Amino acid sequence: MSCALPFTDADCVLLEHGSGGRLSHRLISELFYPAFKNPLLQQEHDGCVFPVEAGRMAYTTDSFVVQPIFFPGGNIGDLAINGTVNDLACCGAVPMYLTAGFILEEGLPLADLQRIVETMSRSAAKANVHIVAGDTKVVERGKCDRIFINTGGIGTVPPNIDISPLRAAVGDAIICSGNIGVHGIAILSARESLGFETVLQSDTAPLNKMLSALLAQHEVHVLRDPTRGGVGTTLNEIARSAKVEMVLDEAALPIPETVRAASELLGIDPLFIASEGTVLVILPEKAAAEALSVLRQFPEGKNAAIIGRVTASGKASVQLKTGYGSHRIITMLNGDQLPRIC
Amino acid sequence: MSCALPFTDADCVLLEHGSGGRLSHRLISELFYPAFKNPLLQQEHDGCVFPVEAGRMAYTTDSFVVQPIFFPGGNIGDLAINGTVNDLACCGAVPMYLTAGFILEEGLPLADLQRIVETMSRSAAKANVHIVAGDTKVVERGKCDRIFINTGGIGTVPPNIDISPLRAAVGDAIICSGNIGVHGIAILSARESLGFETVLQSDTAPLNKMLSALLAQHEVHVLRDPTRGGVGTTLNEIARSAKVEMVLDEAALPIPETVRAASELLGIDPLFIASEGTVLVILPEKAAAEALSVLRQFPEGKNAAIIGRVTASGKASVQLKTGYGSHRIITMLNGDQLPRIC
Repeated sequence: MSCALPFTDADCVLLEHGSGGRLSHRLISELFYPAFKNPLLQQEHDGCVFPVEAGRMAYTTDSFVVQPIFFPGGNIGDLAINGTVNDLACCGAVPMYLTAGFILEEGLPLADLQRIVETMSRSAAKANVHIVAGDTKVVERGKCDRIFINTGGIGTVPPNIDISPLRAAVGDAIICSGNIGVHGIAILSARESLGFETVLQSDTAPLNKMLSALLAQHEVHVLRDPTRGGVGTTLNEIARSAKVEMVLDEAALPIPETVRAASELLGIDPLFIASEGTVLVILPEKAAAEALSVLRQFPEGKNAAIIGRVTASGKASVQLKTGYGSHRIITMLNGDQLPRIC
Repeated sequence: MSCALPFTDADCVLLEHGSGGRLSHRLISELFYPAFKNPLLQQEHDGCVFPVEAGRMAYTTDSFVVQPIFFPGGNIGDLAINGTVNDLACCGAVPMYLTAGFILEEGLPLADLQRIVETMSRSAAKANVHIVAGDTKVVERGKCDRIFINTGGIGTVPPNIDISPLRAAVGDAIICSGNIGVHGIAILSARESLGFETVLQSDTAPLNKMLSALLAQHEVHVLRDPTRGGVGTTLNEIARSAKVEMVLDEAALPIPETVRAASELLGIDPLFIASEGTVLVILPEKAAAEALSVLRQFPEGKNAAIIGRVTASGKASVQLKTGYGSHRIITMLNGDQLPRIC
């Protein structure tokens, strides 16, 4: 993992690194291959070919434009791996293979790229996935913002698993597997222009092992990670898909004090701040207590809490029962309070 | 296909279109879904789930940053679909499902986005593939160059097909399925700064149907589309993988007169100019004549020609036999003569 920088002829990304010619090949063979090495990637082909068994597969993609690219608790690299791993896991799949497409700005220090790529390699190992195909483009200075990464991923869905937002049903409990809003506040704190100090680190993490353990023991109806738009928007999406009403218990929301304080300072609602290592689990209420204890066995799930219930069907709504007993409607995020959070 | 612009509240892309909130949902439900509509995309999930049969699959990804985004013969949208379809086809696969990741610059006219997305929809239909998952991010004005698109794709590899650069063998013929350098010159002609007039249109096209027909009838060793880096770099890559020597016949190269003239004007070598609707086919020489006639049955293959042979093994080299009978070594492209060609 500690390969020295091999580019004696350049210490930053040049347009020629995206040419498809000699410097492109050096970038691939000296930086990407050593970090991501696996037999599928090294087929030296336009794509990779692998055997599959009969069954079901999940397939997803996400682009990452987070700013800044390095932030407390992670960088754009692990965010890109974990984001796609978690999207597959939220389909009920066991993530297998990922692709990585890089768009680089001329002038990006190669040391930054190497640091990002090594982080991706470690995150992929942690999630037990392989990066099997990739692509690199370079654009002129000022035509992108240092680095954008697209990751795609595929995985197999084990038999008897049926995860879909359409399955949210009256009587289901809503579990939030971890703290709310931590990633968003960590990013904001890293943006110089805001300049407030906080010790919060992004919660970016692969959740596939925790979710596999959960799915092996319990029937789950819906899984969804509340990234962009946060818990508020994500639950609204599910409520709309399934046409159900949800009621959240304000007192049960796992919002850390630092997130609460920073949100008040910024005038934003923690329910709309992104998490990157948290998942919303909707499942029959009778299984909720046991599911909680499964989640809590994992470090990513130690703050898991039952935050609400699906109370009615027919029309979509998400309500928050406040400490005073009143109900507040939680609508979908209007406008973009936190651009480029992922 | 002729949906009117539904965005009465905005005629260009806003940061809020990437927020994950209300405007993101409108963009998805009013622009992307109507264009790409298919049941898999509309699972309203973090990814799509589909059944697979036992066998082999191919998986690939590519990002597109072509400039300008609209050019003679196409735009960034069909380039992104055809590029990934052709990468799968060059693995010997039947392309099935594609993903699309959009990075949009704040201020991009929604009419431009709609035109691109509709082109993608038409190209996908032509190649018989479905866009089953997607993602949209928006960055601030000046932080990208209007639009970048990543496409990923998966396909099934039929039994008994084994395409790999490692299989190029002594005695093989090298076929070029179409004209050389057309896409690159079309892009250059579209860049205002160059300002020369030409009637050349990009050759961007899906090649999967033509290649399926070829693979159904003939044993093929290698397939590769000479995009970035052109025929010269692509053959060098294959020669290195297989450690073989190739000799090309200059007189046989299908280089249109307009490409030749524009290349001379610009001082560049057509062998290093990208094609986007052409494929290099390497197969046993005894099958070459029949393979040519299969390719020529398709409009994309009407200019197909045998351009050279694999002559020796042991070390990698690509040589060009000129009209005077001398041999010139063709090395891999050094530097980037044509940035952002795809």
